[in-house]
Amino acid sequence: MERSPVRVDAEALHEFVVRVFEKMNVPSEDAETAADVLVQADLRGVDSHGVARLGKYYVAGLQMGIMNPRPEIKLVKETPATALIDGGGGLGMVVGAKAMNYCIRKAKQSGAAFVSVRNSNHFGVAAYYAMMALPQDMVGISLTQANARVVPTFGRQPMLGTNPISVAVPTREERPFVLDMATSVVARGKLEVAAREKRPIPLGWALDKVGNPTTDAREAMESRANLPLGGLTETGGHKGYGLALVVDILSGILSGWGPGATIKGLKVGHFFGALRVDGFRPVDEFKEMMDDMIRAIRASPKAPGQDRIYIHGEIEFEAEEENKKKGIPLHPEVIDSLREIAGSLQIAFDL
Amino acid sequence: MERSPVRVDAEALHEFVVRVFEKMNVPSEDAETAADVLVQADLRGVDSHGVARLGKYYVAGLQMGIMNPRPEIKLVKETPATALIDGGGGLGMVVGAKAMNYCIRKAKQSGAAFVSVRNSNHFGVAAYYAMMALPQDMVGISLTQANARVVPTFGRQPMLGTNPISVAVPTREERPFVLDMATSVVARGKLEVAAREKRPIPLGWALDKVGNPTTDAREAMESRANLPLGGLTETGGHKGYGLALVVDILSGILSGWGPGATIKGLKVGHFFGALRVDGFRPVDEFKEMMDDMIRAIRASPKAPGQDRIYIHGEIEFEAEEENKKKGIPLHPEVIDSLREIAGSLQIAFDL
Repeated sequence: MERSPVRVDAEALHEFVVRVFEKMNVPSEDAETAADVLVQADLRGVDSHGVARLGKYYVAGLQMGIMNPRPEIKLVKETPATALIDGGGGLGMVVGAKAMNYCIRKAKQSGAAFVSVRNSNHFGVAAYYAMMALPQDMVGISLTQANARVVPTFGRQPMLGTNPISVAVPTREERPFVLDMATSVVARGKLEVAAREKRPIPLGWALDKVGNPTTDAREAMESRANLPLGGLTETGGHKGYGLALVVDILSGILSGWGPGATIKGLKVGHFFGALRVDGFRPVDEFKEMMDDMIRAIRASPKAPGQDRIYIHGEIEFEAEEENKKKGIPLHPEVIDSLREIAGSLQIAFDL
Repeated sequence: MERSPVRVDAEALHEFVVRVFEKMNVPSEDAETAADVLVQADLRGVDSHGVARLGKYYVAGLQMGIMNPRPEIKLVKETPATALIDGGGGLGMVVGAKAMNYCIRKAKQSGAAFVSVRNSNHFGVAAYYAMMALPQDMVGISLTQANARVVPTFGRQPMLGTNPISVAVPTREERPFVLDMATSVVARGKLEVAAREKRPIPLGWALDKVGNPTTDAREAMESRANLPLGGLTETGGHKGYGLALVVDILSGILSGWGPGATIKGLKVGHFFGALRVDGFRPVDEFKEMMDDMIRAIRASPKAPGQDRIYIHGEIEFEAEEENKKKGIPLHPEVIDSLREIAGSLQIAFDL
């Protein structure tokens, strides 16, 4: 029988995750950052990218020496509006937040800035870093490579990651626009769910091992051959393939870390950007026009059977409000995995 | 009976288009630029965006006073890495090329730069401007609004344009990577062809007037309700909707020109970017890695029935090589339309 999620207090969860990272020799300040990124994902309902991965991705990465708890993060090169940062093999969340902070600092000076990052690791949700630009009245951009599980159009071997794109844009009274999308049709999580429930997947999500479109979720899991956004060619799959390449070029080639097909495990490059709104026009006028646009789209006529049009980020902001009040709903299996981590690291477990 | 295309010499076509613009009171230098953009589209096989539109879009726009042949193009605001330019209602090709040139000049100084443009007009192919960055060893970015013919996810009224994204990246021996994609599933041209040939369109391209998915090309033409890249929700349509919004925000809201739903005819805003490769790492190393990535993807195993994997821009570069030698294949109807323009403007017609 399926067990129901249990609501866990966000602050208590945050404290627990900090203790885990500290125990793994991560300095307190960095442990706070890493916990922030993971718990914010859970708060915003993106539970695929939250504490469910604490053990499997990050504790394991630190234990195996793949991730460095005390990395030497180095500025390799810069101009007024660009920089290359070497992450020293650190936790992606720590490297990512530091790189985006540096990017924002540079954008304050120059109006806009872009930072490419090499030698980092899986950084959790891309939106976290793009959203760091919002309180500064900047447009934030965050991209990252991931290991290969997407095929190029007409190919059958995964050569690209799900390479997400996140863009965050400030608003006045409306909630900020926060896009955070894989450049594949669907993320791996949706295949996992369909495979578990033995449901067929729509044609155009993935190929089988031979390279034919499949509706069998388990075949799709095995082949790792996800289709890029747009699916097959007649529905524009070459466009998602192109976007995945752009992410790979900015995160992997501009940083010198290498293309997606050469990525080992969680060791990836990232790319961050920040643009000052007032580098173009007055912030107040911009935000007012954002609000107007959002309201006009939301108020536009709905398709049959639909009663609401969403703006990107809206569902996550609503989840965050609810989960802050009621606690974060964690699957019992996730709670078990956290208890296990606590046991193996010999730290208190009080969730 | 369908008439076959006639090959026309590219230089002769270019000279003709220059004469047309000059006759419309466009200064010679600007007429050269505008002709460059249109003829390059035809050379590269993107005939939907070439001289086929000379009369209907640009001559008509100038004649009706919608487009200003001698615009006052003004720098409204700038920081080291950002600028806002007012296009003075000029031809989009002229405003676009000047704005991208300014963007490149700023990127030379600052490492990267972004220019948002308001009060411009339809600028032809987005790739032209992104590709201007290539000889400078920069990554070029070019976005533009278009009038609304794309619906938001769960909506049925067009609120966004086909808002294309173009990114150009330099290489060493391989041809440059040049992505140029509408953020809708398909461009209007494909619907037109299907309607003319009375062929059904795939489910997921467009909605009918009521907002239901349709396979009837003529219904899709009438509703103007194209679906964003990804199509319906289960195949990721909200992602294309998000990308279209990003293009609208950077071109229309950051420039102050207004969102896509308020765009009248061809009067739009654009957004340009340029990033110096050596603002991140040595150009030679970057280009070598680009070549390696392209070769690895091209050499990767093919899907059944496929014998080639393409890199974005490759088909267009090949068309350009062929058309430069053999002449540009123009549909007889397009040649008729050019002859008509020559007649009405009383200029020589020698194609």
